Amino acid sequence: MTYKECAEFLKKRDDFLVVTHKNPDGDCMGSAAALCSALRRAGKRAYLYPNSQVIAVLRPYVEPFYASENFVPGCIVAVDTATENMFALGFEGAVELCIDHHPSNSSYADKLLLQSQRSSCGEIVLELIKALRGNITREEADLLYIAVSTDTGCFVYSNTNAATFRAAAELMKAGADNHTINTAFFRKRSLARLRLEAMLYSGMQIHRDGKLIIASVTKEMMEKAGATEDDLDDIAGLAGRVEGSVLSVTIRETDDGGSKLSLRSNHEVNSCDICAVFGGGGHAMAAGCSLACAPDKAAVMIKEVIDEVWK
Amino acid sequence: MTYKECAEFLKKRDDFLVVTHKNPDGDCMGSAAALCSALRRAGKRAYLYPNSQVIAVLRPYVEPFYASENFVPGCIVAVDTATENMFALGFEGAVELCIDHHPSNSSYADKLLLQSQRSSCGEIVLELIKALRGNITREEADLLYIAVSTDTGCFVYSNTNAATFRAAAELMKAGADNHTINTAFFRKRSLARLRLEAMLYSGMQIHRDGKLIIASVTKEMMEKAGATEDDLDDIAGLAGRVEGSVLSVTIRETDDGGSKLSLRSNHEVNSCDICAVFGGGGHAMAAGCSLACAPDKAAVMIKEVIDEVWK
Repeated sequence: MTYKECAEFLKKRDDFLVVTHKNPDGDCMGSAAALCSALRRAGKRAYLYPNSQVIAVLRPYVEPFYASENFVPGCIVAVDTATENMFALGFEGAVELCIDHHPSNSSYADKLLLQSQRSSCGEIVLELIKALRGNITREEADLLYIAVSTDTGCFVYSNTNAATFRAAAELMKAGADNHTINTAFFRKRSLARLRLEAMLYSGMQIHRDGKLIIASVTKEMMEKAGATEDDLDDIAGLAGRVEGSVLSVTIRETDDGGSKLSLRSNHEVNSCDICAVFGGGGHAMAAGCSLACAPDKAAVMIKEVIDEVWK
Repeated sequence: MTYKECAEFLKKRDDFLVVTHKNPDGDCMGSAAALCSALRRAGKRAYLYPNSQVIAVLRPYVEPFYASENFVPGCIVAVDTATENMFALGFEGAVELCIDHHPSNSSYADKLLLQSQRSSCGEIVLELIKALRGNITREEADLLYIAVSTDTGCFVYSNTNAATFRAAAELMKAGADNHTINTAFFRKRSLARLRLEAMLYSGMQIHRDGKLIIASVTKEMMEKAGATEDDLDDIAGLAGRVEGSVLSVTIRETDDGGSKLSLRSNHEVNSCDICAVFGGGGHAMAAGCSLACAPDKAAVMIKEVIDEVWK
């Protein structure tokens, strides 16, 4: 779909429920809430699916859009969700429109607005809102600034391009409060988070002369640091900060004692290819997979596959 | 001066020496080197004053523009330098043109291109080069991207505005390699630095319900982390990242076993007043002092003064 076609579709429908994926990030939630806001300005009823996994710093921005229990959706729209199994709960087969930037999108929705060259869904929703309403509000600018800045690590990641900066300039012009957002999202960290970072850095495994880093976040570490889910935002980005590293693996112990692996790499290694071996997926430079074993075992298993794939 | 007037002035002159300030940052050096490049494209001889204090990561970008010892300048141009005492060596009275963004510029040069609403000199030099040559090269885009991104902390600081993002978008379109630059300047940290950060975070003292943080960097920690002076850049900014903190004290053990204290605060506490008790000084939100005792003793002493001053 083009932006115009997508806007026309939205104009024809009503009672929107905008749904988000498991462990939603700033891009997913910010884009979804901004879309709700614009749909309301277009005279529609539009709500956000109340995603219980939203991190604390995001909540004040998105909770005002949450649907009440008795809201009956007339049209379900998914944002930033590449496959149906990424939903927290059964929206399988129910999504009419999907707005996404993941090249791996499985086309599960009836209609798809996919712009895979975009760094974030926020940039896509910005264009969509302009097609729908001609302008954006200050509140929407804040939500989309959160979306764009969090998905690019505040314009550091290599997905940041000229279009990203043009979008950011538009959002600033529309009144986005980048000072407040940057302080909350990029500068300040909870004491528990900093303690967890300290444990992660001091426990990292260094392989291949520092080119491969494997870090773990276990339940024991979480407890010792006093950390909660809220403290895990972008934890997968930390190990890759080591100078000279090419590929980093961050292994998170799940509640049931399994492992969730996040890989980050530069162009020298394809993270997605490695994760695909374990049924995972993602992008070439950022991918993930799950293993039904403890982090120490998972570290050994992923290391074997890495040594196989990365010659 | 307007950009056009400044470009006309540059077109009339030749044998440019572009000079920079003491402890030059990415904005100062990147802007100066980009200007040299554009002047050369305009058929001029243009060199950079070889500033010996340039940090390692910047050197490969700027050293190719350094003047040889026998170069005789016909026109000295200063970049990003607000006052003459900021020069490493005697350019007093010799600067014909100054290009700057500091509101405090003392107008020491014959001609001044001052744009104090700009976040960086890089943005100003971008406009100037466009006025001079109509376009910018990929190399100039890299240099100006370094300028803009380093002066805004990679678009995090509150000086970042819509014009900053528009400039960044132009630089990306002109081919700036933001991936390589961001990786070197903002993402990657030495393993020693990350280990030192881990030790600092895990050893922090938390007082006043998290409002006061006292952190130490001892010689023992430095040794254990394998850290050198190069790994201490902005180390005093780390403790203040704790959510809810108002005042942070970072104590560095000196070679002679004494302590160098750096205080960072928000508007609620005056760091300078506290440091003044020990003969130190600085600004209200960033100040320092020295004590002739070990860090653990210094922590007790500064805490006493803080409790006295901060009621």
